[in-house]
Amino acid sequence: MAIIESIPNVSEGRRPDVIKRLAEAIRATPGVRLLDYSSDPSHNRSVYTLIGDAEGVKRATLALFEQAVAAIDLRTHRGEHPRLGAVDVVPFVPIEGITMPECVALAKAVGAAVGERFGLPVFLYEEASANPARKNLEDIRRGEFEGLAAKMRAAEWMPDFGPPVPHPSAGATVIGARMPLIAYNINLNTNRLDVAKRIAAAIRHSSGGLRYVKAAGFMLEDRGIAQVSMNLTNYEKTPIFRVFEIVKREAARYGVSILESEIVGLVPSAALIAAAEFYRQIERFGPDQILENRLK
Amino acid sequence: MAIIESIPNVSEGRRPDVIKRLAEAIRATPGVRLLDYSSDPSHNRSVYTLIGDAEGVKRATLALFEQAVAAIDLRTHRGEHPRLGAVDVVPFVPIEGITMPECVALAKAVGAAVGERFGLPVFLYEEASANPARKNLEDIRRGEFEGLAAKMRAAEWMPDFGPPVPHPSAGATVIGARMPLIAYNINLNTNRLDVAKRIAAAIRHSSGGLRYVKAAGFMLEDRGIAQVSMNLTNYEKTPIFRVFEIVKREAARYGVSILESEIVGLVPSAALIAAAEFYRQIERFGPDQILENRLK
Repeated sequence: MAIIESIPNVSEGRRPDVIKRLAEAIRATPGVRLLDYSSDPSHNRSVYTLIGDAEGVKRATLALFEQAVAAIDLRTHRGEHPRLGAVDVVPFVPIEGITMPECVALAKAVGAAVGERFGLPVFLYEEASANPARKNLEDIRRGEFEGLAAKMRAAEWMPDFGPPVPHPSAGATVIGARMPLIAYNINLNTNRLDVAKRIAAAIRHSSGGLRYVKAAGFMLEDRGIAQVSMNLTNYEKTPIFRVFEIVKREAARYGVSILESEIVGLVPSAALIAAAEFYRQIERFGPDQILENRLK
Repeated sequence: MAIIESIPNVSEGRRPDVIKRLAEAIRATPGVRLLDYSSDPSHNRSVYTLIGDAEGVKRATLALFEQAVAAIDLRTHRGEHPRLGAVDVVPFVPIEGITMPECVALAKAVGAAVGERFGLPVFLYEEASANPARKNLEDIRRGEFEGLAAKMRAAEWMPDFGPPVPHPSAGATVIGARMPLIAYNINLNTNRLDVAKRIAAAIRHSSGGLRYVKAAGFMLEDRGIAQVSMNLTNYEKTPIFRVFEIVKREAARYGVSILESEIVGLVPSAALIAAAEFYRQIERFGPDQILENRLK
């Protein structure tokens, strides 16, 4: 069975009854599990994490939109986090037994249904968008709800689905597909923050590094050591082992070694199997050689 | 004195008198040197390489446009290479004593003059373009001269300078600023082409590697060895030493060592100095510590 993860972000983080009602809408949908949800009152925003098959995830997403559009009014919404609509952003993430093109197709099917059923403009993003100017969430969200009507007057901001003007109270929504994020940190045997910052600059895409890496340098004050903290946004195309090897080599340039590295939260097993293949120089290895996969 | 390199590409590679007349127009301009030019009859295209200060390069470029627009008619032009106009593309490259923002300003000044003086639509590209959909030459040129009028009817293809429709005979032109290209090859101690191809896939941007690397794997048939052949499009942000170190580590995963690496053609000295700093772990080093720089 295919497993898709979805992490809808909703512009409500202060009214517990609304937050709970949205969680119930997801929980009541057959074929999905709500893994987690959390709210931030100063952001005035909640994030739900659910998994399920394509049909279940689609139904749960539409149920969430129905409740959110009825309960949330962006005209009176205040919060620190940038936002464009009541349901601000919905990514679909392939976890197992499903390809990225299938998740893109799911994003488009959900987007078409949301546009039609709720009269909401829908912008596709990340892998679901073919337009390079409309791939990044930050670019789509720039101007926020307050600037949306003016922004949508330009031809290049015609939505992918739904009406060409914002919904009066619910704004617009951003729907797409992306790979799972891996939060990956490497701790350095140094108290020099400048070394961590220079290594981060070497490895991150924005300053010339690897395509699917975001990185920054930090101090872990309690341990007195510096850390390169990263988000890996596509572990298939930019594997963890390559990130580790470059950081190790760049650190050596400053006479610094690596103390340890850590994966924060969940990681797909495929990302670890790739590292095993790399370090043991394994050829002709397939997932069907893994015992657990044969037991499923 | 500032040194800027420019490499205009012109849609004429068959008529020696026209090709020569364009070269003379550049040579006759004070403050510039024509380093080289070459023509390809099957592409029906010529490439000129010139250097000079900002004012000289600007004057030479306008002189080149004047001759090319008068002599070249895209309605009857045939050739294998994609093209949009009589002067197809003009990049400005910072070599010494000039910054990228200054080269961007030069590209815009030349673009404005070309648009006004010759009635040619001008599209800015690479560093001179702020629009991600209009940075790559291939994206701008898609559809070629024959599809240009239809393409320019869309609002997103309004030119940066000049009229909103193609010039009847000279089409349109693409002007911008970019870093110098470095052609860099690494030869592997193996006859396995698949290893070179896999390393190329690991290092190149399009498949998840370093941002400013294009790469492919080849066989050097006469030596019976495989080669990773690369173009480095920004040696400041993606330095040669980092490319070399990653290729070395990826090759080791296949039990393969590096025989040698080669730089094809010219390279800015700054790219080699960066490697010296990396491998000798030199701190606090400045260009004024280089003897030759003090003698200038």
